[in-house]
Amino acid sequence: MADASSSDITGEKQTFKIRKLEITDKRNGYMELLSQLTVTGSVTDDEFDQRFKEITSYGDDHLICVIEEESSGKIAATGSVMIEKKFLRNCGKVGHIEDVVVDREFRGKRLGKRVVEFLTDHCRGMGCYKVILDCGVEKKEFYEKCGLVNKGIQMSKYF
Amino acid sequence: MADASSSDITGEKQTFKIRKLEITDKRNGYMELLSQLTVTGSVTDDEFDQRFKEITSYGDDHLICVIEEESSGKIAATGSVMIEKKFLRNCGKVGHIEDVVVDREFRGKRLGKRVVEFLTDHCRGMGCYKVILDCGVEKKEFYEKCGLVNKGIQMSKYF
Repeated sequence: MADASSSDITGEKQTFKIRKLEITDKRNGYMELLSQLTVTGSVTDDEFDQRFKEITSYGDDHLICVIEEESSGKIAATGSVMIEKKFLRNCGKVGHIEDVVVDREFRGKRLGKRVVEFLTDHCRGMGCYKVILDCGVEKKEFYEKCGLVNKGIQMSKYF
Repeated sequence: MADASSSDITGEKQTFKIRKLEITDKRNGYMELLSQLTVTGSVTDDEFDQRFKEITSYGDDHLICVIEEESSGKIAATGSVMIEKKFLRNCGKVGHIEDVVVDREFRGKRLGKRVVEFLTDHCRGMGCYKVILDCGVEKKEFYEKCGLVNKGIQMSKYF
């Protein structure tokens, strides 16, 4: 892929691979990456492992992908998708993309677009009729470059 | 509840109860109700049963509720919620509300609000830190009355 390899500001070669989240990724900066998106709190190794098992028990219906910088093993970007099964649209399925974030150290390398495309391809392969996501209006242009269009608003209630 | 009973335009007394979707609800107008929201296509009884079993296999993590008009047994309103398990927010959970619709015959009786409150209460009980949903901007005021606030936009891609 055109963006599979690039150099950092010191000229060191960086190579990225995209794959599913693994249970060992807590050691590779996964939670620190999520903390660039929102509050993560302090998740213990046991809590992480438990949640990892809960999520992976859904198989292909809940996928978390990461982009790993291969020389350091560091997690540079992530995103997730959860597939909802409906009755409407001929018992159709919808992919809900969530929690897309690129480490500030690795921005400007189109890693976010790779994450969204990976998740979108997964949903297409799973037979979804659409993918959706919510974002701040300042992210609209980025997601348009990923092939999505604005359709409606998000409402939320915090407990 | 204040809105548990009302009268239709002919003066006939109507009583409503809210409950989980049951596999026999295809006979009670459930798909016709969904068709007031969007395209449903032609779902066979076998396809319905199969999808019902897939959804209910998630237990409390994917709940579809209906409001039944008790004298006729007709499904008057519905909505669903799917609970997403995250790592962020101390391994938090988020409820995704989907497919809220009230039969046009039964509108103006606050059934939509009851559906949203039922789904929201379920999420609170399940330990979610928030519920979210997407809607057209014309529905904003309705969801504000249900206690939600606008936060961001929805992006989508149809396959």
